[in-house]
Amino acid sequence: MSDTLIISIDAMGGDYAPGAVIEGVARVAKTDPSVFFFLYGDEAKILPLTKQFGLKPDRFKIHHTTQVVKADDKPSAAIRSGRESSMWKAIMSVRNGYAHAVVSAGNTGALMAMSKICLGTISGIDRPAIAAVLPSVEGPVVALDLGANAECNSQNLVEFSIMGHVLYHVLFGTEKPTIGLLNIGSEETKGREEIREASSILKGFGDKLNFQGFVEGNDICLGKTNIIVSDGFSGNVALKAIEGTAKFAAKCLKQAFKPLWARFGLLFAVSGLLKLKKKIDPRRYNGAMFVGLNGISVKSHGGSDAFSFACAIESAIRMAKNNLCDKIKAELSNLMEETEETINQD
Amino acid sequence: MSDTLIISIDAMGGDYAPGAVIEGVARVAKTDPSVFFFLYGDEAKILPLTKQFGLKPDRFKIHHTTQVVKADDKPSAAIRSGRESSMWKAIMSVRNGYAHAVVSAGNTGALMAMSKICLGTISGIDRPAIAAVLPSVEGPVVALDLGANAECNSQNLVEFSIMGHVLYHVLFGTEKPTIGLLNIGSEETKGREEIREASSILKGFGDKLNFQGFVEGNDICLGKTNIIVSDGFSGNVALKAIEGTAKFAAKCLKQAFKPLWARFGLLFAVSGLLKLKKKIDPRRYNGAMFVGLNGISVKSHGGSDAFSFACAIESAIRMAKNNLCDKIKAELSNLMEETEETINQD
Repeated sequence: MSDTLIISIDAMGGDYAPGAVIEGVARVAKTDPSVFFFLYGDEAKILPLTKQFGLKPDRFKIHHTTQVVKADDKPSAAIRSGRESSMWKAIMSVRNGYAHAVVSAGNTGALMAMSKICLGTISGIDRPAIAAVLPSVEGPVVALDLGANAECNSQNLVEFSIMGHVLYHVLFGTEKPTIGLLNIGSEETKGREEIREASSILKGFGDKLNFQGFVEGNDICLGKTNIIVSDGFSGNVALKAIEGTAKFAAKCLKQAFKPLWARFGLLFAVSGLLKLKKKIDPRRYNGAMFVGLNGISVKSHGGSDAFSFACAIESAIRMAKNNLCDKIKAELSNLMEETEETINQD
Repeated sequence: MSDTLIISIDAMGGDYAPGAVIEGVARVAKTDPSVFFFLYGDEAKILPLTKQFGLKPDRFKIHHTTQVVKADDKPSAAIRSGRESSMWKAIMSVRNGYAHAVVSAGNTGALMAMSKICLGTISGIDRPAIAAVLPSVEGPVVALDLGANAECNSQNLVEFSIMGHVLYHVLFGTEKPTIGLLNIGSEETKGREEIREASSILKGFGDKLNFQGFVEGNDICLGKTNIIVSDGFSGNVALKAIEGTAKFAAKCLKQAFKPLWARFGLLFAVSGLLKLKKKIDPRRYNGAMFVGLNGISVKSHGGSDAFSFACAIESAIRMAKNNLCDKIKAELSNLMEETEETINQD
């Protein structure tokens, strides 16, 4: 492929598709001239939207599809009978080497299942994981797994740690990002066996990974480590608990500032509040990634607007430009070889 | 025992003990004339504090102890060699029928282990759980288990649901509080097997329990159900994720209102903000309870000040006045019998 990056877009997935999707694509096209888009979906709906949002004809090609994976379709059913869908066709373009990454705001389970089947798992990775970037007191945090695997063994947790390490490096440039294993106490004797086992394997990597030991639920938003590793059940619970708390806090604040004179007082803090809003705007952190696959597949939030869909596309572009998959493969074999050597020496 | 309620206090546990503890006791003594306190700890330290905080001599008796369980003592070690400690002696007073409940701000693991040994588990309950009351959009939520059992089977989750049901009724008077099982999706097919199994057992109770099915992490703070049931690992992760998010939000807000003119603006919202602070003040929700034991044992936060320690004592009083343990026993045998009948009829 040339220097142009090709990103495939499932234009029909998400609550506000295809409008918000095409508007998001147009935003990215304006700021990044190196990207060309494949748009999968209903041409009759997409074409007028490209004109409306000023997406120039030389920046995209529409691949017309007639089928749509619905939000409540079961992943198994979507795989069986969704082969003509915009989602499937968009993923297949990555598998067949025509595109560098796929982005969809559609059904998460279906996107995960289809991505796994079409792209396949990186050799050496037992289970792919869902990763996302979250805001914290200390800056961005990469958390994984956020729901792909309800149960995990120690080896899965070790693989997630390695993938998180590479992902953080690719996204933020940090050479040796810190890694924490989510547990219910920081002592060595605490928590489930698979977590204690994963901890001792991770310690075996020595300097190669910046493993900091156990972290707890509060350490996610406090940013104690750059990467938080957990099974998909705890990770999903934590992620959603954070979302719920943020909504609760916002609701309480709105109530406190409801009287007219209180709202008048807000004017004095307007610049600080706008900065705060920008910093923790969940839309900026949109774009969950399926890591561990032989290809880049990014899930945008189902309720994405144009701005947040654009952020998800930008994540996909960053991963593609940095050859995330190749780097995970290389880092994995690198670390595995060294560990085997260490084990053999012992 | 007479109408007077006797509450045993571990005066030596917690970061600000015994000062904050005795001040908290004095606060409760002033508002509730029906309670008499056993204070366990160093008499030479406690006696002057009772005078300082105006705790009248006819409202307490000091049981002098010389040993203290430290915050970093291992539970196993505390059990082996802590039999002369203020914590152990305070719990034993409940076991021996001299007191109605014990409250401690000391080492959680040690308090749990000692309470389990001294008080024993209610017959029919396999594993006691840690429960707490959390604020939510819709009012107080009881969540359990919050860390006593890192792994649980379906039967444990069912027992937690029954205990949560009784606890919520005792604390808030709601006749049929709603119960949700923490999962990573609301569909029947989602999550771990033990959770799906617990769900089908809970459905079998029919009208006896107000079981609403699966809830997710965000539903805790949004108050989707009155009671949230989970294994101790997920529950602990969720609780701490909520704490971390709240701290993060508070920090962000402080930053937004840092400039002098912004702080001036806050004056306009002062009454709303004070109401908000009162409503979600974590100190009001202090007092984790070990439910499923043959006696009432309440854990106050390690960093408790006098106000929050008083809140924990008040929880213990409410549970004691309402015969929480007897009610759990009665409800348990009631529900179990009916289920067995239903099963036998099938």
